Amino acid sequence: MDISITRVEKQGKRPEDSALGFGTIFTDHMFNMDYNPEKGWHNARIEPLHNFSISPATMTLHYGQTIFEGLKAYKTAKGEIQLFRPQENFKRLNSSARGLCIPEIDEAFALEALKELLKVEKEWIPETPGTSLYIRPTVFATDPFLGVRASHTYRYFVLLSPVGAYYAEGFNPVKILISKDHVRAVRGGVGEYKTAGNYAASLLASEKAKEEGYAQVLWLDGVEQKYIEEVGAMNIFFVINDELVTPMLNGSILPGITRNSVLQLGRKWGMKVSERKISIDELAQAHKDGSLTEAFGSGTAAVISPVGEIKYGDNIMHIGDGTPGKLAVKFNEAITNIQYGMAEDTENWIEKL
Amino acid sequence: MDISITRVEKQGKRPEDSALGFGTIFTDHMFNMDYNPEKGWHNARIEPLHNFSISPATMTLHYGQTIFEGLKAYKTAKGEIQLFRPQENFKRLNSSARGLCIPEIDEAFALEALKELLKVEKEWIPETPGTSLYIRPTVFATDPFLGVRASHTYRYFVLLSPVGAYYAEGFNPVKILISKDHVRAVRGGVGEYKTAGNYAASLLASEKAKEEGYAQVLWLDGVEQKYIEEVGAMNIFFVINDELVTPMLNGSILPGITRNSVLQLGRKWGMKVSERKISIDELAQAHKDGSLTEAFGSGTAAVISPVGEIKYGDNIMHIGDGTPGKLAVKFNEAITNIQYGMAEDTENWIEKL
Repeated sequence: MDISITRVEKQGKRPEDSALGFGTIFTDHMFNMDYNPEKGWHNARIEPLHNFSISPATMTLHYGQTIFEGLKAYKTAKGEIQLFRPQENFKRLNSSARGLCIPEIDEAFALEALKELLKVEKEWIPETPGTSLYIRPTVFATDPFLGVRASHTYRYFVLLSPVGAYYAEGFNPVKILISKDHVRAVRGGVGEYKTAGNYAASLLASEKAKEEGYAQVLWLDGVEQKYIEEVGAMNIFFVINDELVTPMLNGSILPGITRNSVLQLGRKWGMKVSERKISIDELAQAHKDGSLTEAFGSGTAAVISPVGEIKYGDNIMHIGDGTPGKLAVKFNEAITNIQYGMAEDTENWIEKL
Repeated sequence: MDISITRVEKQGKRPEDSALGFGTIFTDHMFNMDYNPEKGWHNARIEPLHNFSISPATMTLHYGQTIFEGLKAYKTAKGEIQLFRPQENFKRLNSSARGLCIPEIDEAFALEALKELLKVEKEWIPETPGTSLYIRPTVFATDPFLGVRASHTYRYFVLLSPVGAYYAEGFNPVKILISKDHVRAVRGGVGEYKTAGNYAASLLASEKAKEEGYAQVLWLDGVEQKYIEEVGAMNIFFVINDELVTPMLNGSILPGITRNSVLQLGRKWGMKVSERKISIDELAQAHKDGSLTEAFGSGTAAVISPVGEIKYGDNIMHIGDGTPGKLAVKFNEAITNIQYGMAEDTENWIEKL
């Protein structure tokens, strides 16, 4: 499919890297593509960033038939532009599509289109270590219809946002709260898909956690409220007796690409690595007997986020000495060094522009 | 709060009642109101129907922070315009708001604004028995921001759509399929709120049911996949040994207003009425021994929808003789007669314009 390009008349100015936050500033151009049953995906175009004009009856507004992805483009010291495992994002986008009755998108074409967009916007990619260009591919239902069914028409778009260093204030451990009252997802549901409603369902518990001074929620499984699943915007890892443990994918956990990268590196480094069920009781026992030495989250935004405290009911578990654990630091450096071209891409994870 | 009114220059034409379907045709005007932390809900206005201009980063597009309601306005034979328990809809909208971290709306004002809108659009309310004006109040998150949190700004709007008779082809029993693979909601989740993601989460199971020739999905509970919860767009009732049974509200079932009306009438009529847990095993046993005499759904769209067949795995349960059950007919007539002003409003359910 051809991609038409319409450029802005006057290029916008990227803010200073030091002024960048997350997700509030967008680049001059976006990618758009439409779907209908007759033409399939069609009208692929790079065009100036603009508001969407949507009917108040647009199905996604009412029934949330929306999926998305999140990834980043990095600029190396040599000025090269790199993507980190973008194929995995488009593969997951199609998995989400199947789960939400949305027509799939050709993954190779999606990557090609993203690269074309990045070529147009390459001046928008920040350069300071830790900064990057956040990429948000999204598909939403566009039929103007109030009946409940899968939409017949869709929009796919890619939005770009220059973002600051996640650890602007330092790579410090965060505090997370295990929710006893709220459940994010359950087997047989849509927890493993990156769909809008999963995030809406997490808001109330997150607000309550913040009120208690906790950065994020650690979710338990929906069936028994016993097994650890994932943190708000991250997957979770524990180091117990030198074993690197993360909850096994079970249908209600998002299959994180950073999660997968941590597992791959851990195995390569000869660590004992387990994807398995881990209960809150096991975690509490491991904390009590001292065998729990580290906890950290993994995700696109933070890469690795060390966890220094986990609260479950009255049990406040402090992990480590207030500084990031050794393995959190090691994984974070290994992955970010590959992302920013400061280390050899031994895993074949990098896609250059 | 004042409500400003801007009228269309030229009124649109309502289609013939016989040409009306559901949710595809909208009236000339809509109600809009905005929220921000400084002003609260403000700028209440009735204005010509128009598309929304929204940023591609609008939070609801990504994180599904959206709630809505569905109710109807009816025209009586005398030409009066009636609403059915609208206070209950606005009460539920606020319950959904609390569950989704959305600022509440003054319920009395919401009703007043709806009545104002209906006065402007009274020519759009169809007159043939069974037809009505469908009302869709909706709130969605409008911050243009990609971080995951509750939005700081919102839009509330009310969309009106003239709709045809639900039973244009007759009041016939439908076939429903119990899903073994999919789960809609779980305790601790958002199943009891009318939020967009619940509907997205129902699509795949619904499509599979349709492929098997079933109209809708009957959902089991998310914890044990054993207890009956609700049908796709309706609550569910069974008549077993002359007891009218519906699943008790447990946090994962939508608290239907028609459901509540059926319960109230059933009790008034001296029936044995139970809101309790009902397992699929109990249902299968009651079918087997002949004590299950009726099943029907309840909801705003259909009012009462008789169920003639329920499939669970290999067990196909036929209920009744292919015609609607006596109680389904009785509840449907009693409620629609009140809605259309053909019976006395003994329950004080009607709000006249």
